[in-house]
Amino acid sequence: MQDTIRVAVVGISGYTGAELARLLAAHPRFELTMATSRDNEGRPLQELFPELRDTGQGELVVSAPDTEDIAARCDLAFLAVPNGAAMEMAALLLDKGIKVVDLSADFRLRENKTYTYWYGMEHTRSELLQEAVYGLPELYADRIAKARLVANPGCYPTSAILGLYPALAEGMIHPEGLILDSKSGASGAGKKLKPDFLFCEIENDFRPYGLGGVHRHTPEIEQELSGVAGKDLTVSFNPHLLPVDRGIISTMYADAAMGASLDDIAAAYSSRYRDTGWIRVLPQGEIPRLSSVRGSMYCDIGIIQDRRSGKMIFVSAIDNLCRGASGQALANANLMLGLDMGAGLGPRVV
Amino acid sequence: MQDTIRVAVVGISGYTGAELARLLAAHPRFELTMATSRDNEGRPLQELFPELRDTGQGELVVSAPDTEDIAARCDLAFLAVPNGAAMEMAALLLDKGIKVVDLSADFRLRENKTYTYWYGMEHTRSELLQEAVYGLPELYADRIAKARLVANPGCYPTSAILGLYPALAEGMIHPEGLILDSKSGASGAGKKLKPDFLFCEIENDFRPYGLGGVHRHTPEIEQELSGVAGKDLTVSFNPHLLPVDRGIISTMYADAAMGASLDDIAAAYSSRYRDTGWIRVLPQGEIPRLSSVRGSMYCDIGIIQDRRSGKMIFVSAIDNLCRGASGQALANANLMLGLDMGAGLGPRVV
Amino acid sequence: MQDTIRVAVVGISGYTGAELARLLAAHPRFELTMATSRDNEGRPLQELFPELRDTGQGELVVSAPDTEDIAARCDLAFLAVPNGAAMEMAALLLDKGIKVVDLSADFRLRENKTYTYWYGMEHTRSELLQEAVYGLPELYADRIAKARLVANPGCYPTSAILGLYPALAEGMIHPEGLILDSKSGASGAGKKLKPDFLFCEIENDFRPYGLGGVHRHTPEIEQELSGVAGKDLTVSFNPHLLPVDRGIISTMYADAAMGASLDDIAAAYSSRYRDTGWIRVLPQGEIPRLSSVRGSMYCDIGIIQDRRSGKMIFVSAIDNLCRGASGQALANANLMLGLDMGAGLGPRVV
Amino acid sequence: MQDTIRVAVVGISGYTGAELARLLAAHPRFELTMATSRDNEGRPLQELFPELRDTGQGELVVSAPDTEDIAARCDLAFLAVPNGAAMEMAALLLDKGIKVVDLSADFRLRENKTYTYWYGMEHTRSELLQEAVYGLPELYADRIAKARLVANPGCYPTSAILGLYPALAEGMIHPEGLILDSKSGASGAGKKLKPDFLFCEIENDFRPYGLGGVHRHTPEIEQELSGVAGKDLTVSFNPHLLPVDRGIISTMYADAAMGASLDDIAAAYSSRYRDTGWIRVLPQGEIPRLSSVRGSMYCDIGIIQDRRSGKMIFVSAIDNLCRGASGQALANANLMLGLDMGAGLGPRVV
Repeated sequence: MQDTIRVAVVGISGYTGAELARLLAAHPRFELTMATSRDNEGRPLQELFPELRDTGQGELVVSAPDTEDIAARCDLAFLAVPNGAAMEMAALLLDKGIKVVDLSADFRLRENKTYTYWYGMEHTRSELLQEAVYGLPELYADRIAKARLVANPGCYPTSAILGLYPALAEGMIHPEGLILDSKSGASGAGKKLKPDFLFCEIENDFRPYGLGGVHRHTPEIEQELSGVAGKDLTVSFNPHLLPVDRGIISTMYADAAMGASLDDIAAAYSSRYRDTGWIRVLPQGEIPRLSSVRGSMYCDIGIIQDRRSGKMIFVSAIDNLCRGASGQALANANLMLGLDMGAGLGPRVV
Repeated sequence: MQDTIRVAVVGISGYTGAELARLLAAHPRFELTMATSRDNEGRPLQELFPELRDTGQGELVVSAPDTEDIAARCDLAFLAVPNGAAMEMAALLLDKGIKVVDLSADFRLRENKTYTYWYGMEHTRSELLQEAVYGLPELYADRIAKARLVANPGCYPTSAILGLYPALAEGMIHPEGLILDSKSGASGAGKKLKPDFLFCEIENDFRPYGLGGVHRHTPEIEQELSGVAGKDLTVSFNPHLLPVDRGIISTMYADAAMGASLDDIAAAYSSRYRDTGWIRVLPQGEIPRLSSVRGSMYCDIGIIQDRRSGKMIFVSAIDNLCRGASGQALANANLMLGLDMGAGLGPRVV
Repeated sequence: MQDTIRVAVVGISGYTGAELARLLAAHPRFELTMATSRDNEGRPLQELFPELRDTGQGELVVSAPDTEDIAARCDLAFLAVPNGAAMEMAALLLDKGIKVVDLSADFRLRENKTYTYWYGMEHTRSELLQEAVYGLPELYADRIAKARLVANPGCYPTSAILGLYPALAEGMIHPEGLILDSKSGASGAGKKLKPDFLFCEIENDFRPYGLGGVHRHTPEIEQELSGVAGKDLTVSFNPHLLPVDRGIISTMYADAAMGASLDDIAAAYSSRYRDTGWIRVLPQGEIPRLSSVRGSMYCDIGIIQDRRSGKMIFVSAIDNLCRGASGQALANANLMLGLDMGAGLGPRVV
Repeated sequence: MQDTIRVAVVGISGYTGAELARLLAAHPRFELTMATSRDNEGRPLQELFPELRDTGQGELVVSAPDTEDIAARCDLAFLAVPNGAAMEMAALLLDKGIKVVDLSADFRLRENKTYTYWYGMEHTRSELLQEAVYGLPELYADRIAKARLVANPGCYPTSAILGLYPALAEGMIHPEGLILDSKSGASGAGKKLKPDFLFCEIENDFRPYGLGGVHRHTPEIEQELSGVAGKDLTVSFNPHLLPVDRGIISTMYADAAMGASLDDIAAAYSSRYRDTGWIRVLPQGEIPRLSSVRGSMYCDIGIIQDRRSGKMIFVSAIDNLCRGASGQALANANLMLGLDMGAGLGPRVV
């Protein structure tokens, strides 16, 4: 029997916090020792999440976020706080020797000015931007394993990057003219009290939003895909809101590079993703669906070539809360602490 | 008080049949005199559609399809039967002097060989292919008004053609490289008994299907857009299944032609669609949503230019059953019989 | 061509306001002349409800609620404001000669102290409680036709009263021991910004709430059913929240009175509801479903006797927004102004 | 490392089969060695359930059901076949020394004639009816542990019996006049190809069905509750179909026995269910919701007393596929094979 590793979730009250609690309950080594939320201080977790009642975890009393306290009682902290609120918190925790997985966007962009442009505020801890490792295990497992601070990827970027990375890395598609048509479930917006997110506004509806290069996940996708492609590229990223709670499907359109056939490209995906664990490259002719990845770490990828136009179509499916946020955060924490990447991230849930 | 016009719905038992019944109930001039369905002969309509109980219409007894009978008792017939079953039925009815609006695909494609290629059967009444008018009122109102036989457009093509027509007609986008990413509610597949369409298979799911140029609506879209553009074009049409009952959103990507600005293009849409009644070109910056067109004839169109890639993005939203099928059929019938195009097609429903 | 009757909707921004706007758009005589909302003053209606764009109605600019203004420009006002906010507004409008249909609960209970007990506030216009007519047309059409002030029934009470009234009025069920198990769609809660009403909290969920006699519709149901039964009765009313936007099904359990058979009871329902227009008593063995009444004024009623316990089971289905709120308000306004009760309330919508 | 126990799922293609596959994938000791389905012989499991791809389990090839084969290769079989098809299969497997958990209704009713009355066929293996143990672990764990044949309870009965058992066992409610108003998700009907179960027929709908004592789960509920109460009782069981995939909420109404207070009753529930693992008796004033038990073995119970009528209201919530079928089957198999009852049935899933 190995020692327990104590972890904190800072900002437990949102959907990513709830998902972290769910996943930590099944983790063989991690124990959720602290859960913080300014608005819910003093309440047991099961008041916020009735599904946790009598699970052992549900009785944990929510505390106010206090970095001293976290440092004294935990080995690693997951930050599930709003953009802008994480940067100082992360710095303080790192100073006290605590490892940090940040689920906000604060450390995802390497360029200070890019952050300021897209998030409309100064980065007060920009010295950490270069140190932070972008937490996509299929690309950066080695660096994550040595990191003090991991910037957990956004949900859309996880879907987009995993779906395009092998083709770009191998130069099999043109890096220009990429069109990303992404569709996400409503939990991707978080637990925000806005009329647009009420049940009656989403049920029976479907809506594109943030079209045309204005969504904040755009620079994150471009940063990572540019890195993979070895040259700066621009994408047209266009998100849509699905009437489901969980999941993202990205349908992505690209031009094949001269000489790259569908078979070549499919082989490259299979090769790049062999033995990575969670990427399932579907056989030719099969297309991912959201329900196959629900609640799991899987990313299902389908590759199709339009028989008329020749266009390459890449479809990726993930669960935005698990693979696109909290489950990926857990995988990063596993790596940072020397555990098996998949510890506690079992095959699949409902 | 004007005379009643007697109409038949041949193949009442599916979703388009039900929608026709719903709409006809509110029509000022049409009366549903015959409703046929081989499987439901002898049953009152309200057994098939409990919402019609005690509406006057619900008591109508379903009969077997008999062209003699239809010709004797009706002025116009709506054919809501499967592809392949409509061609003979239409020919027989025309021979007897009955006007026909065909909701199947049998008369949508002008080329016999294109029909055979996509639908996998011979067209036994190909002599009617040139006579049949494609029933998209915004494009062909004059010809529809004089037609004996109208081929009612498919749901996806309605959405695609209305969304791209002005830009192509004005030469403001390149006719090459068009990418159509369309998302449809489940009623678009009809009332088919396949496991894929069970509630538990669609709820909590979202799935692309028929990607890469294999969906049968592809040639219909290409035929009409080629006509509009004045040259043969190829599209990459990619449908997705939404977990909603009704509605289609198409997000369509195109390259602006040299010199065509977003403002120019928006102005062309406003101009082309002025006074057409059901096309709502949204103000710049606004994006259509499915719920705004539910149960109505509206087609909402949003035009966006990607600020990074310059790509033009056209979004169109329709109700697939009303605008994309039965409501459009009714508008065509209105035109064919000299009525106001919008008769019985009130502003909007739930 | 008859004159237009000008009406105001005070509190247009919620779901009942939107439903009033939808219905008024199809009304042959009423014109929505004023729409008020403190939070949305100066905005055109179509900004609040994009489905109204270009309908004529969508361009109406929302104003602040001003009774002088309403009196000057309207003949009747619909109050769709919160409980407690309607009482003064109604009194002021009545003083100025304007007829009022109040969709709040302020004038539904005839006893001042009952109002105070259940709504936790003093009624400042209790002198109007006796004058206000409870706006259930099947019971009180004559009185509604002469009323200045109509208290529009609650959604659950509409469902419960219509489902039990004939049996109670005929003494065919015991007035004691009534159990009402009601299930409502989410729009019944209004457009409130509470976490419980977010999409992700309702999708995939179903929850009882307010069980055990604590829901505020309880006294309203008891007041009306006591009146019908001719003696004070108590019900056990138990609401549940369905993951749908619209509709209420109440499953109600009662003991048959000595000598009353299922046939007797069914005959009483058919007799009482003959010629009332919107009540559909289903044939024996049939059970209502929500989708049959969606968007309509219908109330479908099924009557079943448990073959083992002998218990009588009454099932009623309504659309909570149309029949249970705004449509019923419109029917009341029709009666108050001498129009046909059903004017503008067509057969059915999607 | 302990030995693997080999199990078969006979009838893998339905929803309970899929749920068994999901749960077995996470089980520490059981290995799914055979999966049978006449219609899918020769296909790998991942073709039926794409979510199983690359999980190790997905590659298992479906075979035709052959009792010799099952006996040769497995230690225990789960029968997930239709009612009537299980009885012979179970008998043959028992003869060959294989333990059986039967998810059909074939061995749930102890009286041969009751089976024939409700299921409309003769029981060809009625000699096993007395031997079969009703597989509700909270009531019969000891007997299950010694059984060769366990009749896995129906989903509604699991919900009803767990919700009422302590009150009846303690004589705290009257056994007469029980009203059970139950609401189930659509997977309860299985993967049947009937128009009623298509997505468009359930979305936006809610419908009672089988009201008045005609649902086949009625005798099963009565058999078990009669046993608990120590006298024959009759219930009014009334099911409803929810527009969700999973879950059952039963709202159950009873009269308190003389002298039994709400506190007494609540205390009896807490006492009876202490240390049983999966029953969560909620604190007074709290009410179960479906989402809290989704995908889990939990049964959440709320106890409320109507403050006006004095009626006792018991609410139970379960996941119909996990607790109400496949998860419970696994718990029974655990007991039958000497494992911990909860092995492989972790805390909770999405």
